[in-house]
Amino acid sequence: MDKELLSSATAVRDAVKEELTLYLAQQRDYLTSIASELTPVCDALEDYLLEGGKRLRPLFAYAGFMAAGSVPSKTEIRAMASLELLQACALIHDDLMDGSDTRRGKPAIHRHFENLHRQGSMAGLAEQFGEAAAVLLGDLALVWSDHMLHNSGLSHDALTAALRIHDEMRIELMAGQYLDVREAGEREHSVERSLRIARYKSGKYTIERPLHLGAVMARPSASEHSELLNVLSAYGLPLGEAFQLRDDLLGIFGDPQTTGKPAGDDLREGKRTVLMAMTLEKAQGAAREELVKNLGNPALSSEKIESLRTLITETGAVADVEKLIDRLGEESRAAANSSAIHPDARPFLLALAETAIRRSH
Amino acid sequence: MDKELLSSATAVRDAVKEELTLYLAQQRDYLTSIASELTPVCDALEDYLLEGGKRLRPLFAYAGFMAAGSVPSKTEIRAMASLELLQACALIHDDLMDGSDTRRGKPAIHRHFENLHRQGSMAGLAEQFGEAAAVLLGDLALVWSDHMLHNSGLSHDALTAALRIHDEMRIELMAGQYLDVREAGEREHSVERSLRIARYKSGKYTIERPLHLGAVMARPSASEHSELLNVLSAYGLPLGEAFQLRDDLLGIFGDPQTTGKPAGDDLREGKRTVLMAMTLEKAQGAAREELVKNLGNPALSSEKIESLRTLITETGAVADVEKLIDRLGEESRAAANSSAIHPDARPFLLALAETAIRRSH
Repeated sequence: MDKELLSSATAVRDAVKEELTLYLAQQRDYLTSIASELTPVCDALEDYLLEGGKRLRPLFAYAGFMAAGSVPSKTEIRAMASLELLQACALIHDDLMDGSDTRRGKPAIHRHFENLHRQGSMAGLAEQFGEAAAVLLGDLALVWSDHMLHNSGLSHDALTAALRIHDEMRIELMAGQYLDVREAGEREHSVERSLRIARYKSGKYTIERPLHLGAVMARPSASEHSELLNVLSAYGLPLGEAFQLRDDLLGIFGDPQTTGKPAGDDLREGKRTVLMAMTLEKAQGAAREELVKNLGNPALSSEKIESLRTLITETGAVADVEKLIDRLGEESRAAANSSAIHPDARPFLLALAETAIRRSH
Repeated sequence: MDKELLSSATAVRDAVKEELTLYLAQQRDYLTSIASELTPVCDALEDYLLEGGKRLRPLFAYAGFMAAGSVPSKTEIRAMASLELLQACALIHDDLMDGSDTRRGKPAIHRHFENLHRQGSMAGLAEQFGEAAAVLLGDLALVWSDHMLHNSGLSHDALTAALRIHDEMRIELMAGQYLDVREAGEREHSVERSLRIARYKSGKYTIERPLHLGAVMARPSASEHSELLNVLSAYGLPLGEAFQLRDDLLGIFGDPQTTGKPAGDDLREGKRTVLMAMTLEKAQGAAREELVKNLGNPALSSEKIESLRTLITETGAVADVEKLIDRLGEESRAAANSSAIHPDARPFLLALAETAIRRSH
């Protein structure tokens, strides 16, 4: 990203954070007026939402709005910022389901509340309390995302158009999450099924739908936006898949310092990624046996992780995934240059694509 | 309930079921077009939503609409039926958090998916799969409730007014649920705190807010409905507390045949109910020690449950709770007779109050 665009993405992130800060302060006032016991809920969600995150979904919504030829106002940025609350729900519930201990280098929400239970010498089981809190904080974040969107100040037409996309997006997200959880129960890896999950969890939820959401806020009338939405899909879906493939690589080869997750986390978890499915399609003999034997063992040593990484790279799957990312990036860039996209939005879309594909966390 | 009113409540329940049946069939078509692996998700939610439930929240929304002097159309019943999906989310997540094995005499959702995992000889841990599925099915039901409400066909004004109440209701629900979970971690029972939880979980979520939701659908303008909402609160909040107190009694003394929950379930779970807090305030000496020692022991025998029931009754707490229910019922009935309530709605409100307070399940 060049300097000017970088500062523009940074400016969007800052504006999103400002809206979230305001919203969360209002909700804190309200919840603590019900009961002071709700303070840890507010603290935890504030910390989660204000202390980090790439703000990808609001950024893509912003890009979708620009693609329609307009610049979002504070009202629209508020509506886009609500996507961060939806994403908080997805991550809190994801970490709970996976039993992940950390998120962005800090304890996951269920672990955080488990710790609060122990520190407060509360009655009952700390682990059960942590899990229940994570269920409810995720639910609350989901409800808040909706509430923030409803109260963003969008015009009736823009809100109606936005809600239609927003509902589809959330149904697709839950469907993708279920397929992902279910995939872990399959005896065999499958490139095809893993690509479909990537399409729903990342292609649609992270990129295509946020773009659409922004676009329909700018042009609520269906007759005006249909071609634009198609082009945004042509830009967003391959980019989303590329984004997920980069995630697959980071889940195995990423630096814990930048990812905030333990090294080789996906190996310990035995995650059914496209990268692993491609690896197992290619691996043979002793290498294949060694991989199958060790994937999903939560106690893998760092030496073992290093040797599994080498095996994976030697199959050629890493190079293939990098090639696939390049091809998908190419497709995505071609769509960004379509005439249906307002020229002012192009540099922003191209820069976002670059960030999504080349990132280190 | 007299015969005519009973048939009217039954007619509302039937209409609600019809709308849910249509909605779920549409969503099944959509989800299974994404992937056939989503079929068990559709099956489980259909079974959950169509095979039982008292439809209390749609019934109170219906009553709120009638209180404003109108009769709901199919469109409005569709909007009210969406509350059943929200309630499905609450119950699925509740059973998961409590580790309850059954709901309405059938396996709870997390147990059902745990069973599917075992029957399908899937890879990984059956219990973890069951829990993850329950998190996601609850999330999906929450998103669907919203989607069904948004697409019910309400006018812009009615929808805007409904969403405002609906958002508040869901935030109150999550706050009440958190306080309930947190209460289990307190070392001492408290009548005051348990009453506050009853107010948020039942008074507001089950009764007051559904009434308001119905009323504002009929009269979207704030200037027209403010007195009506106050009177509905005066009817709904005491009724909600009485409803929860009846639940407390059923949780300890209820017949498993009608409740669909194991006998004395709240004793085994050590649930922090108003009834138990009042019992422990009154119990002394050996009886108190015996209660404190046994509450929350999941392995209580049926003989032990019988003897604990006797101890609880002997403190006088059961009689006190019955008296409190009567007093709250009185308050509620007085409000139902207020002139702000349309006369046609009164018999329905009075009959609903009777059902909520005198029920056996």
